[in-house]
Amino acid sequence: MDAPDIPEALRKRVVIERIAPDVDNGRFPIKRTVGEPVTVTADIFADGHDVVVAVLRHRHTSHAEHAEPKNAAVSAGSAWDVSGFHETPMTLVAPGSDEWTAEFDVDAVGWHEYMIVAWVDRFLTWRRDLLAKAADGQDVALELLEGALLVREAAGRAEQIGSGREDARLLLAHADALCDATPPAQRASAASSDTLAAMMAMYAGRSAAAESEIRRVWVDRERARFGAWYELFPRSAGPDPSRSGTFGEAAALLPQIADLGFDVVYLPPIHPIGTSFRKGRNNSTVAEPGDPGSPWAIGSAAGGHTAIDPGLGTLDDFEAFRREAGRLGLEIALDLAFQCSPDHPWVREHPEWFRHRPDGTIKYAENPPKKYQDIYPLDFGCDDWRALWQALLDVTQFWIDRGIRIFRVDNPHTKTFGFWEWLIDRVHARHPDVLFLSEAFTRPTLMRYLAKAGFSQSYTYFTWRNTKSELVEYFTELTADRWRDVLRPNLFANTPDILHAYLQRGGPPAFRARLILAATLGASYGIYNGFELCEARALAPGGEEYADSEKYQFRKWDWDRPGHIRELVSRVNTIRHQHRALQFFHTLRFHETDNSEIIAYSKTAPHGTDRLLTIVNLDPHHMQHGHVQVPGIGSDEIFTVRDLLDDVEYEWRGEWNYVRFDPDIRQAHILSIDGH
Amino acid sequence: MDAPDIPEALRKRVVIERIAPDVDNGRFPIKRTVGEPVTVTADIFADGHDVVVAVLRHRHTSHAEHAEPKNAAVSAGSAWDVSGFHETPMTLVAPGSDEWTAEFDVDAVGWHEYMIVAWVDRFLTWRRDLLAKAADGQDVALELLEGALLVREAAGRAEQIGSGREDARLLLAHADALCDATPPAQRASAASSDTLAAMMAMYAGRSAAAESEIRRVWVDRERARFGAWYELFPRSAGPDPSRSGTFGEAAALLPQIADLGFDVVYLPPIHPIGTSFRKGRNNSTVAEPGDPGSPWAIGSAAGGHTAIDPGLGTLDDFEAFRREAGRLGLEIALDLAFQCSPDHPWVREHPEWFRHRPDGTIKYAENPPKKYQDIYPLDFGCDDWRALWQALLDVTQFWIDRGIRIFRVDNPHTKTFGFWEWLIDRVHARHPDVLFLSEAFTRPTLMRYLAKAGFSQSYTYFTWRNTKSELVEYFTELTADRWRDVLRPNLFANTPDILHAYLQRGGPPAFRARLILAATLGASYGIYNGFELCEARALAPGGEEYADSEKYQFRKWDWDRPGHIRELVSRVNTIRHQHRALQFFHTLRFHETDNSEIIAYSKTAPHGTDRLLTIVNLDPHHMQHGHVQVPGIGSDEIFTVRDLLDDVEYEWRGEWNYVRFDPDIRQAHILSIDGH
Repeated sequence: MDAPDIPEALRKRVVIERIAPDVDNGRFPIKRTVGEPVTVTADIFADGHDVVVAVLRHRHTSHAEHAEPKNAAVSAGSAWDVSGFHETPMTLVAPGSDEWTAEFDVDAVGWHEYMIVAWVDRFLTWRRDLLAKAADGQDVALELLEGALLVREAAGRAEQIGSGREDARLLLAHADALCDATPPAQRASAASSDTLAAMMAMYAGRSAAAESEIRRVWVDRERARFGAWYELFPRSAGPDPSRSGTFGEAAALLPQIADLGFDVVYLPPIHPIGTSFRKGRNNSTVAEPGDPGSPWAIGSAAGGHTAIDPGLGTLDDFEAFRREAGRLGLEIALDLAFQCSPDHPWVREHPEWFRHRPDGTIKYAENPPKKYQDIYPLDFGCDDWRALWQALLDVTQFWIDRGIRIFRVDNPHTKTFGFWEWLIDRVHARHPDVLFLSEAFTRPTLMRYLAKAGFSQSYTYFTWRNTKSELVEYFTELTADRWRDVLRPNLFANTPDILHAYLQRGGPPAFRARLILAATLGASYGIYNGFELCEARALAPGGEEYADSEKYQFRKWDWDRPGHIRELVSRVNTIRHQHRALQFFHTLRFHETDNSEIIAYSKTAPHGTDRLLTIVNLDPHHMQHGHVQVPGIGSDEIFTVRDLLDDVEYEWRGEWNYVRFDPDIRQAHILSIDGH
Repeated sequence: MDAPDIPEALRKRVVIERIAPDVDNGRFPIKRTVGEPVTVTADIFADGHDVVVAVLRHRHTSHAEHAEPKNAAVSAGSAWDVSGFHETPMTLVAPGSDEWTAEFDVDAVGWHEYMIVAWVDRFLTWRRDLLAKAADGQDVALELLEGALLVREAAGRAEQIGSGREDARLLLAHADALCDATPPAQRASAASSDTLAAMMAMYAGRSAAAESEIRRVWVDRERARFGAWYELFPRSAGPDPSRSGTFGEAAALLPQIADLGFDVVYLPPIHPIGTSFRKGRNNSTVAEPGDPGSPWAIGSAAGGHTAIDPGLGTLDDFEAFRREAGRLGLEIALDLAFQCSPDHPWVREHPEWFRHRPDGTIKYAENPPKKYQDIYPLDFGCDDWRALWQALLDVTQFWIDRGIRIFRVDNPHTKTFGFWEWLIDRVHARHPDVLFLSEAFTRPTLMRYLAKAGFSQSYTYFTWRNTKSELVEYFTELTADRWRDVLRPNLFANTPDILHAYLQRGGPPAFRARLILAATLGASYGIYNGFELCEARALAPGGEEYADSEKYQFRKWDWDRPGHIRELVSRVNTIRHQHRALQFFHTLRFHETDNSEIIAYSKTAPHGTDRLLTIVNLDPHHMQHGHVQVPGIGSDEIFTVRDLLDDVEYEWRGEWNYVRFDPDIRQAHILSIDGH
């Protein structure tokens, strides 16, 4: 009979499936930051009853890019290095299940890879069966002979490795011992030697091993996970609002921002602003003389995306500003707003990058019937798309070359998704430390897809989640499996576009509540300046625009005006730096309370350390009190909690404890309950 | 600037993701039977705000195997045929979501494929914007010119199709109307013409369309989904248990099996049985003279897997038996037990297909310290594996050539999974009507993997799920997404290996309850003969083996013995044939009751018709009563339910109604509540 042509892969006995974490079957990487653990699980099983062994392999791809993993191994403590791969034994999650797990830490920025290798282990199967038969009093002489053959095969594999000669000799001695002249029962117990098992594991016969597909991890620096952002318009740093503030004047604000404990200073676009259809104060369609226009209407005779608005100064002024920030421990984030004013140099130099109408004009932005005539969108799918995309990458690289490592990206969801996937990948290939924040306030599918395509962080719906049920539902969703490995939320409490009614109506207690929520729910959060001053004047009732918005005019802020909450901002940022629990997002868990205005949740550092319990009164107008549950506390157990905001200690007893918040006195607790 | 080498695929604006149904990202097909609907959903979206259009394509692959789908289309009612693909427009599941759906029916056995094509529709985007501007009173003269250009482009695409000439002419007329001399406002309303929209859809510009990967559906005949099985040992059909019954004698039993309403008669292996280490009565390790041995110890001097046990008769006798069954509307299922007795011809002819020990003997089956010396497992991974696999395919083909279209596969989980994937695929390529039932009582991951690998049906844990909570939990799991598209349960109420304690202790009421549960929870179910006689004698207390099991001896059954439940079996099978609700599994939904011994659930045919409510008293010993909820009934609504078991009608009112079961009178209701 002619043997049919059956693919060799079908002969593999072990199945590896349902690997997690995973994003779309490996189409996209999962995300981590340096030092974070990656806990891998998978269903692994073989036909029949033989013993299965599985190992997790991982590597930093710059170590040995795309080298084929090889069989056999060299000892190095509990992990072996195989062609750049480190191996960790996997263990069963529960006896009788087929779910296996192992964990590794990612120790450097950039691409990491992991995969699973699993095989039916003939030695362990043999040993299990031998011991069962010996315990039953059966004659195992033949079994011992079989075991000796398996050990000799392993010695043969050891022999082929330069450093394995000594191991081979030891293995052969074990093999001899299995079939020497001592009584079989005695020899059977020699089969359970730990030394033998360890060497047999090292030189396991893996020729029939199954290998999973490789999964990728993109590892960012810590700032992708943890940071407090402060947004300001440097043009408002001048002595009065009659002219643009300069980078030199804005630099004078940096010490107070550093004192507030922020990590990142984010600037709206700093480029020349178009004059055609320039917007006036409060979004008027007519600009008065002296009105500076929206910084997002980029480009004028003074230049485009690589130029500095003359009112702010020069490129040298900008670089001095950035250096001063760095000296104070602050990092500058710039805005990537890939659109043009009608006066942008590209309109003249590259008309092919824009959409044209039958009358020869360029199509301006619109959301019919609304028109945005001061903005020309770029046509990401134009015939000359590759050159356009390269030009935008060049813009990004221009600012990277000037020391920028964080970009806040304006409306990425209105540009081809593939563009971002390409641009971020190209940047990361040379600069793995660059971070991109997606400003996409759109449907969840699009926000998640942009995160998958490579964005390091994402704006969220946080500003519109103000009730307890809204907050619990939304943040439970964001910490669930489907989101956690791809999307890192950055919780802005306000933005130049969003002054929520809760803040408009709630006064300083509302600002205190939202600050603490943002800073403790999110490991990354931000405020737009004025928040710490409780600025709450809206342009129109029912809207979310600020009155006299800095988007359209210069402003002069009084940083010490009555009612500000700068001490609280500073305190909260200090607590965030001191407590690792607040530097991670995924450990967030909500707790029960018996008052719908009181929200409670805890966080820990990875592996459960440094537990903090935050309790916030969401009602800015009234005293609220009630009970909060701390699960896992014994019913009569007495324990101490300490409020990190004011260093007051409370003695609590059992799972449910009483809290009371008077908006005049306090809006929240951030309680250290480490040890519980 | 040199344009970089960016893959064209990144330019696509539309994303298609999260396609369902799906099994492991397309690694395995989903399963359906002829006539069943396939409801496809996916997340589909583009950047920005343009209008997205999506279509579902499906085809029977024998129509146009692996032909590349092409652009454009030919009208054929609501669906278009594109290179063998039928197209159905997809619709949004909910406004504002990104989830789209469409449905198709599979109309023939074999492979079907489906995929999604989606694109940003320039015409629909233009029309939406035009109408918004016109409604706002804006001048739309330029917009109308743009629309005319789009319509002319479509005319160009129509022109390229032989049958599209007339459409092209009509489109050009529409284009002219959009830019003629009538006032723009009038022309704008012409843009919303349904005729124009339909033609623009037919000739939509799809050059930038995104295409999903192709997903596969394996479509079986109806019997894969719906059938009642009856298992019997033909050798027990003789006049007395001193000798083997013959196929001729077994044929005499077929009319009564047909009268009971069964669809499939399953026979344990019918091959010659080994004599070495033959098992005696009640699994004794010593066979007495005349003991027939286990039919699963296949092979003797009389032949192997393609021979007939001489006691049963000849191959001609078997074929006569099969024909008689067919005449009565019964289909014969054979057992594929791929293992050998030590006397099987292959042991001599192909020793290389077995595992050998250092002393030259062949390794028998064992589960240390237990030994099964009457069985030699085949070594599916031996050096000559391809020839062995082909030989086993040849065995299967041998019985297919003798008219067999259903196989019950013995212990498939102890053979390489890839073997089954290959064998079932090879059989289906020539005989798509062949069904395979997996007898794998093992861990859920393995049972599910075998189903994914191709098995048409699977045994389940049903025999071990006897309480209400066990049944609800297990069947809720089996109807969930993760299982429903791959694993079709076949609920055997007993097997020659499993006489559950519930049956041993519960008397006829227990048999009545389990029969109705099996036949109404499962669209496929089965009993092993004796069940209808309430045979309940166990070999040993605490065990599940039958006393005097037919596995090891001839039996003579009295089919009319007191206490039998043959009328109920016949009635239930008749109801199953009359009511489509019981012919489907996935519509199963459990209902609340206020008594933990009373279980209630309903089923419908697809699309919700023919609703049946089954209520079973799980307590075989005591009267139980309580209330059952029928969700969706108005609180004062009065409606009639009819028990299909005894044709008694009840008048019910509101959601909760009273039921009472006395084991002496009734154990269950099968209520028709169609219309509610």
